[in-house]
Amino acid sequence: MLLETKQKVLKANQLLPKYDLVKFTWGNVSQRDLDTNYIVIKPSGVNYEDLTIDHMVVLDLDGNIIEGKLNPSSDTKTHLEVYKAFPLVLGICHVHSTYATAYAQAGKPIRSLGTTHADYFYGDVMCVRVLTKEEIEEDYEKNTGKLIVESFKHKDILATPGILLQGHGVFTFGKSADESVHNAVVIEEVAKMNSITESINPDVKPIPQYLMDKHYLRKHGKNAYYGQGKKK
Amino acid sequence: MLLETKQKVLKANQLLPKYDLVKFTWGNVSQRDLDTNYIVIKPSGVNYEDLTIDHMVVLDLDGNIIEGKLNPSSDTKTHLEVYKAFPLVLGICHVHSTYATAYAQAGKPIRSLGTTHADYFYGDVMCVRVLTKEEIEEDYEKNTGKLIVESFKHKDILATPGILLQGHGVFTFGKSADESVHNAVVIEEVAKMNSITESINPDVKPIPQYLMDKHYLRKHGKNAYYGQGKKK
Amino acid sequence: MLLETKQKVLKANQLLPKYDLVKFTWGNVSQRDLDTNYIVIKPSGVNYEDLTIDHMVVLDLDGNIIEGKLNPSSDTKTHLEVYKAFPLVLGICHVHSTYATAYAQAGKPIRSLGTTHADYFYGDVMCVRVLTKEEIEEDYEKNTGKLIVESFKHKDILATPGILLQGHGVFTFGKSADESVHNAVVIEEVAKMNSITESINPDVKPIPQYLMDKHYLRKHGKNAYYGQGKKK
Amino acid sequence: MLLETKQKVLKANQLLPKYDLVKFTWGNVSQRDLDTNYIVIKPSGVNYEDLTIDHMVVLDLDGNIIEGKLNPSSDTKTHLEVYKAFPLVLGICHVHSTYATAYAQAGKPIRSLGTTHADYFYGDVMCVRVLTKEEIEEDYEKNTGKLIVESFKHKDILATPGILLQGHGVFTFGKSADESVHNAVVIEEVAKMNSITESINPDVKPIPQYLMDKHYLRKHGKNAYYGQGKKK
Repeated sequence: MLLETKQKVLKANQLLPKYDLVKFTWGNVSQRDLDTNYIVIKPSGVNYEDLTIDHMVVLDLDGNIIEGKLNPSSDTKTHLEVYKAFPLVLGICHVHSTYATAYAQAGKPIRSLGTTHADYFYGDVMCVRVLTKEEIEEDYEKNTGKLIVESFKHKDILATPGILLQGHGVFTFGKSADESVHNAVVIEEVAKMNSITESINPDVKPIPQYLMDKHYLRKHGKNAYYGQGKKK
Repeated sequence: MLLETKQKVLKANQLLPKYDLVKFTWGNVSQRDLDTNYIVIKPSGVNYEDLTIDHMVVLDLDGNIIEGKLNPSSDTKTHLEVYKAFPLVLGICHVHSTYATAYAQAGKPIRSLGTTHADYFYGDVMCVRVLTKEEIEEDYEKNTGKLIVESFKHKDILATPGILLQGHGVFTFGKSADESVHNAVVIEEVAKMNSITESINPDVKPIPQYLMDKHYLRKHGKNAYYGQGKKK
Repeated sequence: MLLETKQKVLKANQLLPKYDLVKFTWGNVSQRDLDTNYIVIKPSGVNYEDLTIDHMVVLDLDGNIIEGKLNPSSDTKTHLEVYKAFPLVLGICHVHSTYATAYAQAGKPIRSLGTTHADYFYGDVMCVRVLTKEEIEEDYEKNTGKLIVESFKHKDILATPGILLQGHGVFTFGKSADESVHNAVVIEEVAKMNSITESINPDVKPIPQYLMDKHYLRKHGKNAYYGQGKKK
Repeated sequence: MLLETKQKVLKANQLLPKYDLVKFTWGNVSQRDLDTNYIVIKPSGVNYEDLTIDHMVVLDLDGNIIEGKLNPSSDTKTHLEVYKAFPLVLGICHVHSTYATAYAQAGKPIRSLGTTHADYFYGDVMCVRVLTKEEIEEDYEKNTGKLIVESFKHKDILATPGILLQGHGVFTFGKSADESVHNAVVIEEVAKMNSITESINPDVKPIPQYLMDKHYLRKHGKNAYYGQGKKK
């Protein structure tokens, strides 16, 4: 139900300051409504503590505003490109969290250096290139979305549900707005761990594939045995 | 109205501990009152939690105290020099926040390594030299102000509204006291991101000019489309 | 009494977020009940704020569930191996705290660089190898426990009550669940201090043995004179 | 009055967790009572949140307990040596705060890299050597005090009111218990700033002497003009 989706998007956006992922208005979360296939997203430039359910902006996949009086997040077109390409993605989060953004600024992936990473992300979190001047001038936010889509062409976006944009920040994905925020928390923590790890041991290598398989698969997939045997 | 300006300066100073920009009394914020062209500033050495509106010190641009029983911030003359030189600057904030001060101590600028920076600062945040012995002996705080003014002679101070003073701390500027504090939060966060970025990738380069243009101009200038189409 | 042990395990698990040792459900604490020799442990995947005493899972040392409707922590077999091998270990804590995990990811021990370390840990905190593919396929969690047991074969586990697992995280031990959490806090803080120390001085050496002896023995052993002359 | 001094020592100790200078019971503060020349100090191993005024331990300068049922801090003899040698020192604080301890572990001084330092400390904060085995065996805490006293023989302890003990932690001094804690906060913050500064610019040099003089003397000494013209 659309009302419920709006409520969930409101709550997911309110998690951003709670988890210390944002300063001021530096992040936005959206969710796809399964009944209507509309997207609900945060309005642009509104403080999280001021947000109400009536501020939520509802759009169709072509970007037409269906409900809401405010402008949607300036990153809306990026979200829409991802939703159009990946029907299983139901939630998207974009933030400039400190450590993940540092990796994005450094132009480096977040490598699988430990099982904390492997519990959530199957393989490295990519860092993709800066758009060209032409791509930016043509349509910055839409082309950012297209680059994300292109980058996951041969990968399972929900198995490694995050991506760094060089010189910018991070996008995370999930089966709900809440799950995309959850993944943003994980990426930020893993990025922090990795920056410390690499300063302790500059030659550190990723964990072996079989250890990653073990951790990822004990939490995900049909033989998962972490948790209480039901999907969260 | 002067009373309103005092209220705003009080509130802006109270934001400094809230945003974790200061220890003890290590920072001060001022605002120009448009009706009178007076400057309202924090008194020297008073804790933020003890501040009341009656503590605010009102001065004219020559430094004569118009209202208030307490000594103004010891950095007052620095503020006054900037206000005298730049009529569009209506708020000034000075802090020793951790990461911005580390860059000042290192004698290095805060480079434009990402769009978080470009959303607020058009180009690098300069780090300017230590004053000479003669300048300090003659009038330390006034000559600090003159150095800031000189450094922005050929630049738009409100387009890159911050400056590092080598071996000291940071000054930020804005169209209000509140906006100058906002910019101090941004500089501190960007300085933190950059110090991590540079430890991950010592060879990192600033983002391309066209990406900086895009981000700065989508938030600022007449074609800005970030937010809700009104000035905050 | 088993009820009391369950209460203590509940409280010890609730300390994990309080001491900032975990995100989400990334940690678990257990305690041995002295009356029954049963082990009480956190259920898998339940948030700390939702935990109640009825969620606690009671098992015998062979892993048979005696009480509780939920699945025990997925790391339960690791706990059981340690309890079986070391009768004096009465509490175990496992977390992925940021700095300790960074050392684990780096594959480096936490060295005795200061008296903060020596007040609690007599000698370096080891970092042990990643399991082989065969060990993981056979029984990951049980073989992790066996590796921990093997690593302490010629050492006093309660004199250096913690161990890093390469590419994974940290396990700490104690004479109660609470003490094992206490030791996890110490390891995290010492790991943080050490990472900063090593960045300041890459050639830093451990403190001399006689200084370690002095600090460890003034807090532990029969001639201890720290505190109020009773065991905490 | 002794009662008042006990109240002040209680409050000063309670500031340690408030300012994030300690974990558990890792710090202690004392003050000299001017009426009696007795020293009031925290008891050993008692949590800060449990402390009451009746827990405070009163000793004479020879270490005889005058009032109090609990054992005094295990570092008491170190405090006493400093009080005996420097009559103007009225408050002492000892902590293992993260960044100051990292410098102590690294065996490096905290250099005067900025005016934040110079506002409180006139010159570098020394890091003094580890005691010899013989000194530790004879009387660890007393000889630690003697080393501190010796190190300040030709310096003004209240002009640079702090010292690092290699491989251990930091002691700070003041004209009251509260002022010694204040100085511990400053040292911790300056140590943090310096560790970041040195990672940004490994070749950074201390600020010029004339800048240090200016900042130190505008806050201290008879021509000071910071604050409201009365001693805090």
